[in-house]
Formats: sequence, C-alpha cells, structure tokens
Amino acid sequence: MTIVITAFERSPDGGQGLARDTRVRWALEEVGQPYEVRLVSLRAKREPPHLRVHPFGLIPTYEEGDLVLFESGAIVFHVAERHAGLLPDDADARARAIAWMFAALSTVEPPILELVTVRILEGDRPWAGERLPLVQDRIRERLRLLSARLGDADWLDGAFSAGDLMMVSVLLRLRPSGLLDEFPTLAAYVARGEARPAYARAFAAQLAVNAR
Amino acid sequence: MTIVITAFERSPDGGQGLARDTRVRWALEEVGQPYEVRLVSLRAKREPPHLRVHPFGLIPTYEEGDLVLFESGAIVFHVAERHAGLLPDDADARARAIAWMFAALSTVEPPILELVTVRILEGDRPWAGERLPLVQDRIRERLRLLSARLGDADWLDGAFSAGDLMMVSVLLRLRPSGLLDEFPTLAAYVARGEARPAYARAFAAQLAVNAR
Repeated sequence: MTIVITAFERSPDGGQGLARDTRVRWALEEVGQPYEVRLVSLRAKREPPHLRVHPFGLIPTYEEGDLVLFESGAIVFHVAERHAGLLPDDADARARAIAWMFAALSTVEPPILELVTVRILEGDRPWAGERLPLVQDRIRERLRLLSARLGDADWLDGAFSAGDLMMVSVLLRLRPSGLLDEFPTLAAYVARGEARPAYARAFAAQLAVNAR
Repeated sequence: MTIVITAFERSPDGGQGLARDTRVRWALEEVGQPYEVRLVSLRAKREPPHLRVHPFGLIPTYEEGDLVLFESGAIVFHVAERHAGLLPDDADARARAIAWMFAALSTVEPPILELVTVRILEGDRPWAGERLPLVQDRIRERLRLLSARLGDADWLDGAFSAGDLMMVSVLLRLRPSGLLDEFPTLAAYVARGEARPAYARAFAAQLAVNAR
C-alpha cells in the first residue's frame, strides 16, 4: 500500500529541514520505504479536510490504506515498529530506544520551542530581549545533562535508533541559535546524524519542495 | 520481577496528582500490576545516583530487573505493551492510540507547561501579567481543536486507552487555572478519567506520600 505523508507547501523555515515532515522522511529513508507527499498550504491546514486527518491542523500526517496517523513521534514509531533498522531486537534495548524518542519530544524539544515563542510569536513585545537569555538558560540546562549522558558514545544507547533520529531532529532546531555549538559533544552527535545517507535524502526531498 | 518507580519525596504540587509519577501509577493500576516506590528528594534528583537512572534528573523512572526506563510516556507505553487493558488489539487502532499519547505529550502539554514558566519561573518578572493571557490563548487554541475532535465521544478513539490516560493526565494540569472549565466537553472527559477506579487508587497513593 502506498504511504502518503503531508508537508507544508511552504515551510516557515524555507527548507532548512526543521519542519516535522523531515523526521518522517528520514525514518522512511532509513528503512527504505518509498512514500508520496501531499502538500498542505498554511491556509488549508486549519480547514476541515486537513483537520479530519490531523486534529490540531499540523503536519506531518501518515496515510497507508485505511490507517491515518498524526504526530511525528507516532509516525516514526509506527515506521520503526514495522520495518527493520530503527529499533533494536532485544526487548530492553527497544524499550530504552523508545524512551529516548519520548525524551526528545517531551523533555528536550519543549524548551527549544520557546525560542520560537520569544523570537517570533512574542518578538515584538517589550520583554523579548530580556526573556531570551532565560529561555536559552533553560535549554542549556537540558543540553548539559544530555551531553553528559552521551559522553563519548556515538549514539544514545548502542546502535543508531529511532531515539537518535528524533533527538538529532530536535537538536537541529538549535543550529540557527548557536546554542548547539556551546556543546561540542552534541554538535558532533548532530553532525553524525546529518551524515547518514538517509538523512541527506530526506533533507534534499524537503528542500526540493521549498526551493520551488 | 518487582517493579520499582520513583516519585518526589515532596511533590511541588503538594499532592494534587500533577507530578508525572501519577500517570505511571495510573497505568500500573489499570493493568493490575503491583509496584514499589522509591522516593527522591529535590536535592538528590540532580545527584549522580539518580542521574544514572534518569539522565535529566526528573521523575518518574521505572526499574524491573535489568530494565531501567525514564520518561512517563515511555513507561506508560511499556506497561501498555506488556499487559492487556491499555492498547487495542487491532493494529491500526493501536497505532492511533499511540498517536494520542504522543499528541498529549508533544502537542498539548508543551503550551500548558508555559503556565508554570509565566506564573512561577518568571512570576516575579515585570512581564508576567501581560504575558499570561498570551500563554492562555495558545493553550485555548489547542483545547478548542481537541474539544472539536472529541465531540460527544467518551474517549478519543473507541475504548479507553493509554492515549486517553495520557491526555487526561496532561489536561488535569489545567484544573487550577480554570481554563479547563471553559471547555465543558473536555472538563467532562477529564472527569470520566478521574472516575476510573484505577485513577482513584493512583491518586490516593501519591497523596499518601505527600500528606505525610
């Protein structure tokens, strides 16, 4: 059955790969599954046809026959569960890889998303300048602990997994801010993720949409 | 094997059930698995013994024999995967229930956590008063869409699942703010969750710790 995902017709990042369809493209490339993309305009995302597929009017979504999924974490997990290459066979190692997926999305990403709030959503407010360093410090606290855990390992827990795919994707959002470079261990980790051929294919595919 | 989870010796909410161990207790109660609790002080959470179990120095964690997990989402999923009662048997319905878990943690909870930032972490800053309604409006936007999707259904997708457990747990954080009451559909949904005997047992267990 054909896999169809959604992505923005024009991503707010202009093709830097930070929109969440890149994570799903990357997972599909890692496991060698072809997919099609349905582009959604920023207007159409809040209209009923798309809301039926994604209750929060976001991207990406995933359709395969009768199955309709939303949330990049759920989609990457679904792909990882059904195809070899993104989750270890050992049950305990698999559970730990899944834990890193959740850690990326619910512990590391939320403080990073605050950069969008302080810089863009509230960028014209009088407090933006004074708030930025507070937001940055909360991010640094998480990065410091993540960096300490990673140490000199290549990946978070043994071989590359869906947990790394998600963590690298989340950390990539920091590149424009310069914060990632304060943690060379993490900068090198992200670079290892970007060096994977599957990531390069995913990045090129989303860039092709945004460069049109 | 004995299941051991961690919780705070003194939860910042004083036993309102908003700390993340409640979610894990609830899941374990739903599937009928006994568990023990190791209490962690607010000081010890950032020290090496706990950091070895939870890289970000948070709770809850989950230990069962050699398996050590962190992240409430990962732990609830692990419990749901190994014991009947929290995930549907049908593969597509199961994938959708997992999608709601991710939606709760990465789409609905992050804007809700901003209430803590604006009220507590930055509560003494001059912008706190003016920022609060902006934070509230971003939460309302997500609640409006969630409420529309839930409609007059009891649960998000068929029978009660780990997706509902997580979504109700996330929404409960809003009760002190009054925002939940603006959406009667969601207030009733949360009340249905709280009315489950397993939730009541989980709530009582965490309260007993905090009431000491």
